[in-house]
Amino acid sequence: MKTDNADIGLVGLAVMGQNLALNIADHGYNIAVFNRDPGKTRKFIEEAKQSEPSHARLLPFEDLASFVLSIKRPRKIVLLVKAGSATDVTINALVPFLEQGDIIIDGGNSLWTDTIRREKELRAKGIEFIGSGVSGGETGARFGPSLMPSGTRMAWASLEPIWRDIAAKVDAVTGEPLEGAAPGKPIEGGFSCTEYIGPDGAGHYVKMVHNGIEYIDMQLICEAYWLMKNLLGMEADEIGKVFEEWNQGELSSFLIEITGDILQQKDPVGPGFLVDKILDTAGQKGTGQWTAANALELGAPANAIAAAVYARALSSVKEERVEASKILKGPVIKTESDKQAIIEAIKNALYCSKICAYAQGFQLMDKAQVQYNWKLNFGEIAQIWRGGCIIRARFLQKITDAYALNSRLKNLMLDPYFTQAMNEGQEGWRKVIALAVTNGIPAQGFSAALAYYDGYRSAVLPANLLQGQRDYFGAHTFERVDQPRGKFFHVDWPDPARPQLDV
Amino acid sequence: MKTDNADIGLVGLAVMGQNLALNIADHGYNIAVFNRDPGKTRKFIEEAKQSEPSHARLLPFEDLASFVLSIKRPRKIVLLVKAGSATDVTINALVPFLEQGDIIIDGGNSLWTDTIRREKELRAKGIEFIGSGVSGGETGARFGPSLMPSGTRMAWASLEPIWRDIAAKVDAVTGEPLEGAAPGKPIEGGFSCTEYIGPDGAGHYVKMVHNGIEYIDMQLICEAYWLMKNLLGMEADEIGKVFEEWNQGELSSFLIEITGDILQQKDPVGPGFLVDKILDTAGQKGTGQWTAANALELGAPANAIAAAVYARALSSVKEERVEASKILKGPVIKTESDKQAIIEAIKNALYCSKICAYAQGFQLMDKAQVQYNWKLNFGEIAQIWRGGCIIRARFLQKITDAYALNSRLKNLMLDPYFTQAMNEGQEGWRKVIALAVTNGIPAQGFSAALAYYDGYRSAVLPANLLQGQRDYFGAHTFERVDQPRGKFFHVDWPDPARPQLDV
Repeated sequence: MKTDNADIGLVGLAVMGQNLALNIADHGYNIAVFNRDPGKTRKFIEEAKQSEPSHARLLPFEDLASFVLSIKRPRKIVLLVKAGSATDVTINALVPFLEQGDIIIDGGNSLWTDTIRREKELRAKGIEFIGSGVSGGETGARFGPSLMPSGTRMAWASLEPIWRDIAAKVDAVTGEPLEGAAPGKPIEGGFSCTEYIGPDGAGHYVKMVHNGIEYIDMQLICEAYWLMKNLLGMEADEIGKVFEEWNQGELSSFLIEITGDILQQKDPVGPGFLVDKILDTAGQKGTGQWTAANALELGAPANAIAAAVYARALSSVKEERVEASKILKGPVIKTESDKQAIIEAIKNALYCSKICAYAQGFQLMDKAQVQYNWKLNFGEIAQIWRGGCIIRARFLQKITDAYALNSRLKNLMLDPYFTQAMNEGQEGWRKVIALAVTNGIPAQGFSAALAYYDGYRSAVLPANLLQGQRDYFGAHTFERVDQPRGKFFHVDWPDPARPQLDV
Repeated sequence: MKTDNADIGLVGLAVMGQNLALNIADHGYNIAVFNRDPGKTRKFIEEAKQSEPSHARLLPFEDLASFVLSIKRPRKIVLLVKAGSATDVTINALVPFLEQGDIIIDGGNSLWTDTIRREKELRAKGIEFIGSGVSGGETGARFGPSLMPSGTRMAWASLEPIWRDIAAKVDAVTGEPLEGAAPGKPIEGGFSCTEYIGPDGAGHYVKMVHNGIEYIDMQLICEAYWLMKNLLGMEADEIGKVFEEWNQGELSSFLIEITGDILQQKDPVGPGFLVDKILDTAGQKGTGQWTAANALELGAPANAIAAAVYARALSSVKEERVEASKILKGPVIKTESDKQAIIEAIKNALYCSKICAYAQGFQLMDKAQVQYNWKLNFGEIAQIWRGGCIIRARFLQKITDAYALNSRLKNLMLDPYFTQAMNEGQEGWRKVIALAVTNGIPAQGFSAALAYYDGYRSAVLPANLLQGQRDYFGAHTFERVDQPRGKFFHVDWPDPARPQLDV
């Protein structure tokens, strides 16, 4: 293999890496590929030869030195290896072969603080580092993911043409995904779902928040399903048809669409529906908990996102729950008779809760950009998520519109469209939660979202008592409603005769 | 000052350090005291001379070398300095003067992982390190705190007599606090609220969970207050009397008691009640968010504890809430007429939610002891918290009893006493949340706790759909209810004709 032949290189040939490599090849780029297990590389190439029109542009290598040498300078090398120490190991293995100005692009689900660290370490060696969130799962990687890159502007300029080519495409005006990708036949035109996010870890941060939103988005759908099943006694396929119908309206999204499919899927190995045979213990990787933990750290009220993470944790103790169900009592569920009205109310609950979830995600990113000194473009971020990624949804266009109307919007819920949506939907939303609570059906995502809504729109909250408690036992002081902010007082509790001290 | 005169030393003379020093002196120990600002030390000694019978046992020092030399070997030196880097700075300053076997005791609110690190670093230098949680605020430190020490057994044996002397005392059988401490007159007899917690960071970990529980305990009380005020139109003092009454029964606790005081406190500088003049923006230090974040990391479903942290975050954006309240609509609150019944239901909601909060805290410690290789004695921990600390409550005796009955109890809610309490209280609990939700009054602690209860007692949860979604877009596989655990399946969604693959 002669040198300087490849436009780009890629390390890591698990399914995400394979699919991203094929996507890049489809767009006319020669791509050098490497995996630490050469057998995996050979197998990938063999299979590609069978079915992939662009297979000739895949250039396989079995040693790192020749792999690196084969790439045109400044070299662009994409990593799709496991987040964490495997990423460091791979970077360290590559560095000795790289030259000044070469660019490593980490496409894994790395923690953004790791990305900040790696960027700094590599910069000291004259090597550029782009952390790029890649969302869309296997299919997204193959036919157009949503890409969230960060690093220096210069490195981005070098990567940009390829990243724009391989990203998902949506209609530039309506934001509707452009469909029809097939091997070797990339989609042309439209808005490409990638934009420069910011320096150092910004891209991986935004991808993390994307995943946090994904967690609660999925949780809310599960609650809607569970309420239809338990309050209305509906079978899986009937509920699936409701989701199919919802997918035609404002809720239209990838997750709603696949939920319609999943609920109507028959069990391939027996009678009944597959969903009723799937064990109810949810797995999780790190990104959901990172989002909730970072919100705690930054003091952002992302309680609905956290609720989704905790719900997965609760689901995972299956055996314990089965035992507990025999001991802990609850009310007998009273099946509701007015089916259409309840389904409509559940739809309202889902939509209003979803708006809260996104409001929390964007509020968190707003806190983060101040904390980490980034300048995030929220309208653009919503647009990047329109295509390719797991949370792609018609609804995101409304978010782009909201930030176009007011780029300094404090909270999504304050945008006129969303304010009105919540105003119209809240009666049903409240009704559904009251029914869930009364009947003993857990709906922690819906509840957390509503508590956020009602808390956020409360000019006064009972934290006055809480500040009184803190001053009582810890002399933490308090501010007064009739005094300027920043002036602190302390009372020598519990003696009412002692005067208030100005401290 | 001659050397080897002091039984113990203490560094850091902010209010907690001063009070702990006085407490130690009251018990007949000579205590060397040091502060990096000598003026503070002098002022402390001057003031003690005025009013403290034990002041002669306070031995002030203005340089570290003489301070250290004044202490009997093996030296015991308590730090009460700010958690974080100030603690490291103080340790580093002390070390050059210490000898093999000397013991540093960190009484600050340190992050337990810092304690693990410091213990390791000091052990390498032959110095013992005890991380000891100290709870009870100023008053606790002065007249008897709750103490949660961890380190080596040998170091603990050396510290134990002093720690037992100064800790809060409760009746060894009933657990009721023994009252009546005054300067120079320590309480004798009873159970002393300190026990060896475990090695390295275990003591600070348990203290952290104590604080996480404290956060939700306070939040739940605030919600009870807020519902009485908003649903029943009650004035502060009337609500205060309800808390006073509640303090006579199963809810009896320090926090309920002071809430009764606070709500009845008149404004010292004007008409009306002070609580109505306190600004509703809650401050927070690190321990609440550490607890919630660690729960996320360990996969423990501590959603109510997290809800309390997020509620504080929401309270802190006061100006934003005031603006939002003008835009975001909610229902008009319908005042309830059956006052006594609603108050009773709110009491039920508070008690049931509190049980959930403690269940989450103990469940988290159970996860932690597996993760960090500790052996925690939960009955003893509940007993330590019976006196001195902020969450001291009659209710904790029931927890000690529960673990005495079954030391391997999986979840507090499964103990017969608590099961029955929740069974009896849940109708009121559900009614109150339904009212809150319908009337637009935020009650996220109550809601999160109920969602936990209903989730935990659900043999099946909708995570089956969630696993279907994860398998659909990410090939994450799922388990089946009709197959053994650990056997994973994948379907080639969305094509129903394709068979299920056993992977």
